[in-house]
Amino acid sequence: MRIVLDAMGSDACPHPEVEGAILAVQAFGDEIILVGDETQVRPLLEAQGNPEKIRLIHAEETITMEDKGLKLALKAKRKNSKTSMAIGMDLVKNGEADAFVTAGNTGGALTTAYFRLGVIQGVERPGLTALVPTKKGFCVVLDIGANPECKPEHLLQFGIMGSVYAEKALGMTRPKVGILSNGEEAGKGNTLVKEAYPLLQASKLNFHGNIEGKELFGGEVDVVVTDGFTGNVLIKASEAVAKLLVELLKEGLMSSTRTKIGALLAKPAFDTLKTVLDPDEIGAAPLLGIDGLVFVGHGRSNAKAIFSAIKVARNAVEAQLINAMGSAIQQQLQDIS
Amino acid sequence: MRIVLDAMGSDACPHPEVEGAILAVQAFGDEIILVGDETQVRPLLEAQGNPEKIRLIHAEETITMEDKGLKLALKAKRKNSKTSMAIGMDLVKNGEADAFVTAGNTGGALTTAYFRLGVIQGVERPGLTALVPTKKGFCVVLDIGANPECKPEHLLQFGIMGSVYAEKALGMTRPKVGILSNGEEAGKGNTLVKEAYPLLQASKLNFHGNIEGKELFGGEVDVVVTDGFTGNVLIKASEAVAKLLVELLKEGLMSSTRTKIGALLAKPAFDTLKTVLDPDEIGAAPLLGIDGLVFVGHGRSNAKAIFSAIKVARNAVEAQLINAMGSAIQQQLQDIS
Repeated sequence: MRIVLDAMGSDACPHPEVEGAILAVQAFGDEIILVGDETQVRPLLEAQGNPEKIRLIHAEETITMEDKGLKLALKAKRKNSKTSMAIGMDLVKNGEADAFVTAGNTGGALTTAYFRLGVIQGVERPGLTALVPTKKGFCVVLDIGANPECKPEHLLQFGIMGSVYAEKALGMTRPKVGILSNGEEAGKGNTLVKEAYPLLQASKLNFHGNIEGKELFGGEVDVVVTDGFTGNVLIKASEAVAKLLVELLKEGLMSSTRTKIGALLAKPAFDTLKTVLDPDEIGAAPLLGIDGLVFVGHGRSNAKAIFSAIKVARNAVEAQLINAMGSAIQQQLQDIS
Repeated sequence: MRIVLDAMGSDACPHPEVEGAILAVQAFGDEIILVGDETQVRPLLEAQGNPEKIRLIHAEETITMEDKGLKLALKAKRKNSKTSMAIGMDLVKNGEADAFVTAGNTGGALTTAYFRLGVIQGVERPGLTALVPTKKGFCVVLDIGANPECKPEHLLQFGIMGSVYAEKALGMTRPKVGILSNGEEAGKGNTLVKEAYPLLQASKLNFHGNIEGKELFGGEVDVVVTDGFTGNVLIKASEAVAKLLVELLKEGLMSSTRTKIGALLAKPAFDTLKTVLDPDEIGAAPLLGIDGLVFVGHGRSNAKAIFSAIKVARNAVEAQLINAMGSAIQQQLQDIS
């Protein structure tokens, strides 16, 4: 198995990428192909004694967090694009690698993947996915931003793709699928939700019905489908609430000697919270519907997070996720024809 | 000034209502009219020596948290409805009281208000409002559930109504108004957001542009407008995230003797957090656009929260909120005609 790793993705790149790649080679023994600026990456590899099984491919350009709009589209689409994302995904496209992992610009990864790898036959819209921490573990939420406007059929396909991912790559059995709504009862929702509900109900999915934030974060379902506008608002608001609470807690804990001592003693409890809030174990989430394995991790990824990202990508390769997803989508198209 | 208080609203009713009413009479000296089941409320008042300035009006029915659909509509609309909400709001309608306060079923209050008080002339849709805690204080968010489908003009009116409320009743100067979106840049958003943006920009509002969760909880704006579907998802997800974090923190703190002692010492920090998460000071939020002052508090309200709810209702009465809102809406209609 060969995983391509974008060396220029994370905020602190290429350090976490090089260290994460070394951890992965040590753990799995497979080749890792780093794609990025040779002048930055080579010295780091040399400092580590040029680890075996890590190959470096030079890429002179990078898609930054600022790239968007036409500029991004051109960087992503150009045949001879020199960005690390384009070069890396082309390796997957040409069968020279099995999956692409980046901690870079999510929109950049999606746009590059769309132009270079295309979508799985029958998939109407690829979806951005997040693994959201819940009381019971994690749940797969999509779409979180690729498609601000969705049709009911898109939500059905998100359900199918999320379900295949949860089952094949995350090892969940008969994943429960819910539609994010403003009320649990059938009949609640906006027009999109109301029209998507019967489609998911009539499908072969393990459909749980509508869910609200309570059920999502309570871990009552494994897959949550929503349009990319609502999903994006959900994810960003959740992160912002968590950040606000942690800030207020920190301020409170630092406000007196008494609370400082308390904080020191209670540290293990805060460490648990930190694991849930910024889970390096998640590593990365897939772009579902793209005809090739592409995983996007957080810009704040450290070496451990990069290692985890490579690990989840490996799971998806082993599970032959793209084939499984293609079959599920073909099955769906047959069911409705 | 006379405030009508639904005695049958909160989860623990009528205890918090009776105690909250007594606190309010002591603090403000104005009459409070309690509306509710005499057999339950009278004994509580007698136990307190029948406090002066608290009047009790019997209501044999209650809108419960389970009431919805046609049953709720009938309870709300019937001319001779015997619910505490209907009887209480009729007092406002007839000029016998200045504002209605309840900690009961929000949908029930909205439906009852819609049928009994109607909407302010020119208002297309009333909006459910929430006061959301932020890093800098509070922000007014609407709509959080009355209208799952909205038109751009509705978002503009939510901005006007929210702005008038923030200025007149909450004392904010030139409140900054933002549209909840999946990106800050103009041009980001779903169709509704994209079409609402120029309307708010062309208005006399202090328009800040699009905002995301980060800006909302960071306190960068005073008023956030959104459709009732997205707003509802936002509020419920935020509450669920906060609840999950607090649960995980509690579990962590209770997991060993060391962390238990730490928790005891750090208690002041947790108390600050609690104030933000379950702020009795907020008391209640108004139904904006209804032609009469109606405030809805949380079902979990205690006496202090009921007292705060009465206080915010008093502020709105003193600010002549309904008149101010009517003028602002008339001004808007003139501006566009």
